[in-house]
Amino acid sequence: MKLSIDQQRLATELDALGAISQEPPPVVTRVVFTEADVRGREFVKNLCHDAGLSIREDAVGNTFARWVGSDPGLEPVGTGSHIDAIPNAGRFDGTVGVLGGLEAVRALAGAGYRPRRSIELLLFTSEEPTRFGIGCLGSRLLAGLLDPATAGQRLDRQGISLDEARATAGFKGPLSAVPLPSGYYSAFVELHIEQGPLLELHNVPIGVVTAIAAPAGLKIAIEGEGGHAGAVLMPDRHDAFLAAAEIALAVETGARSTGSRDSVGTAGVCEVFPGAVNSIPSRVRMEVDVRDTDETRRDAVLRIIEKACAEIAARRGVRFNIELVNADAPAHCAPPVVQALIEASKTHGLAHECMISRAYHDSLFMSRIAPTAMLFIPCRGGVSHRPDEYASPEAIAQGTLVLAEALARLAG
Amino acid sequence: MKLSIDQQRLATELDALGAISQEPPPVVTRVVFTEADVRGREFVKNLCHDAGLSIREDAVGNTFARWVGSDPGLEPVGTGSHIDAIPNAGRFDGTVGVLGGLEAVRALAGAGYRPRRSIELLLFTSEEPTRFGIGCLGSRLLAGLLDPATAGQRLDRQGISLDEARATAGFKGPLSAVPLPSGYYSAFVELHIEQGPLLELHNVPIGVVTAIAAPAGLKIAIEGEGGHAGAVLMPDRHDAFLAAAEIALAVETGARSTGSRDSVGTAGVCEVFPGAVNSIPSRVRMEVDVRDTDETRRDAVLRIIEKACAEIAARRGVRFNIELVNADAPAHCAPPVVQALIEASKTHGLAHECMISRAYHDSLFMSRIAPTAMLFIPCRGGVSHRPDEYASPEAIAQGTLVLAEALARLAG
Repeated sequence: MKLSIDQQRLATELDALGAISQEPPPVVTRVVFTEADVRGREFVKNLCHDAGLSIREDAVGNTFARWVGSDPGLEPVGTGSHIDAIPNAGRFDGTVGVLGGLEAVRALAGAGYRPRRSIELLLFTSEEPTRFGIGCLGSRLLAGLLDPATAGQRLDRQGISLDEARATAGFKGPLSAVPLPSGYYSAFVELHIEQGPLLELHNVPIGVVTAIAAPAGLKIAIEGEGGHAGAVLMPDRHDAFLAAAEIALAVETGARSTGSRDSVGTAGVCEVFPGAVNSIPSRVRMEVDVRDTDETRRDAVLRIIEKACAEIAARRGVRFNIELVNADAPAHCAPPVVQALIEASKTHGLAHECMISRAYHDSLFMSRIAPTAMLFIPCRGGVSHRPDEYASPEAIAQGTLVLAEALARLAG
Repeated sequence: MKLSIDQQRLATELDALGAISQEPPPVVTRVVFTEADVRGREFVKNLCHDAGLSIREDAVGNTFARWVGSDPGLEPVGTGSHIDAIPNAGRFDGTVGVLGGLEAVRALAGAGYRPRRSIELLLFTSEEPTRFGIGCLGSRLLAGLLDPATAGQRLDRQGISLDEARATAGFKGPLSAVPLPSGYYSAFVELHIEQGPLLELHNVPIGVVTAIAAPAGLKIAIEGEGGHAGAVLMPDRHDAFLAAAEIALAVETGARSTGSRDSVGTAGVCEVFPGAVNSIPSRVRMEVDVRDTDETRRDAVLRIIEKACAEIAARRGVRFNIELVNADAPAHCAPPVVQALIEASKTHGLAHECMISRAYHDSLFMSRIAPTAMLFIPCRGGVSHRPDEYASPEAIAQGTLVLAEALARLAG
């Protein structure tokens, strides 16, 4: 089988999808169920349709484009990723796995290959937690790790529920129909940019992921006492923002205290209320993300943050509430799928490196219902979630080539 | 002269003005040149019209309602305050000076008094800095302390200029026509809630302000490096929000370091960009307010904050920019006007206390062009800039009575 990746077509399609954004280029902002997200989905579905795939969408908008195998009774092989993007993001996070997965299918078909198992390309809904405060919404539901009975009532910051938002985007029906049974896929592979610097540093084109770090998300609400910035004297204050500032620094200290470079903690959201220069902040809403490859170590950082919150709140005379939004277990990739990726790299003479994923992926949840592994490609400077996020057309094509080869091995 | 304040009418009018808000009661949010601000102005102007006053508006929306005196060639006596309100504020800050000033005029007219000097009730535009980042916009322009040639280009956070915003609200013409010459008013008195706890604590109905604290405003922009909250390791980060958190704490430390209870510092605005839970903050916009009754001491706090910014930015590898938006000198009130207020209190058997104003007022700028003093009334718990801000109808009526008496003394 002579596999040929159309590097130029894939780069052009990634550019075109990147231009579908809530903000002008080069900024990609494509929050789930916004008009940009819906247009992005249409773009991908049209390409899948042109490639002869049959499309199904579930109630939360997860999209499945199937290339039917010669033995359609067998469990299919899955591949895919997401197209939603956080505010002020770039063109490659997620999209490389969706459009690269499609290009892999086209390359296999172009080479005359016909799979025994069906191959299904997945576009997961809301891998990013931007809108509903929880990452991997679609894959979490698919894997049965989010309760469909209550998920629909989750609210965004404007008070719009997931049920309302998905209906606006055209996705109706009960969320209880979303979960897939364990064993539904015989294997799942996700192609993704590394979002770290290692492959570029080592000049290696292929990363084979053997484990995915365990993320946890906290929402912290702080309630102090407002007042006039001129009239209330310093000793009489209960400033919610100063408490939040100390908590943010405690997140940093906590993450750095474990002795492991794999522990990271970030306060990425801090909304100060009322937000006027001459008003003492009365209320703050923060969101904190803590990750580690080791669940015990990560949970120890969570304990440090909780302790710090209690100490800071007591000392400053403010109230606080911590909600643990999610605390997922790390995923270990399935050895047979890892092996298929390693062999596929070798077949095409591409060096590979086994590594862990520090970032969050839909594969974390797919690993709960299918033997799963991930393929990484280098991205410039390890940068992602920024408009200058970049992966070269060559690097993307090489990853897509290995993906196609691995899918062929897995689909038989 | 038998002065009679209609306490019930005044309370009802304050309630009605409070209900004109961008948010449902009890929250008052009335940002300058919004529809709520325009409706509030209409409400006040209609009442002034009903009271027989003649109304003039200048190009920035400062509104002058004149009761013409028997000797119209003499410099008038001014009184008044503002009706704009920061987000999530209350019903009494500013409005008591406007509607109380009007009630004072009505009481004087009702008592058969006819002033020799004209008495002019002023409604100042944008005492609050919420929209254009600078407090006392109207009175600052009136007093010639803001350059009319550039003021119109000031932008709000949506990028709307002052010129565009005032035109939308119906105020056109050159801002260069706004300044009034020094000596235009023979005296100026502003009635206001204390926004501090002293009058209530001491059970004294009338505060006579002898000095107004000197405020300074800083805008601080911090530019770090964004990135994926999972993928970028802690030692490699340049998190703009952590720098901002340290700066906010440095504002607190700086204000507390002077040894004087009169030094206060507040970081009331902190906007974190991009503001996603899984994204390292790349950029922060802060606004800081520093005040003191002593200008030298206040400026020493500014130096401490600037030094802290430089140290924090260097240590964290982020860039920062500090803009000193305003740094006004403290105002000392005019002894003859202070004396008139003291005598007016005594005439009506109301105890008074001389005090300084820790909050910012239009009087700070009026004092540059007219002999000025302020009258304070108690407010519950010293609370202001909050929906539960409260002054009793009795307290407001007592302040209004002293104001009317003083206006009569000053207008002859």
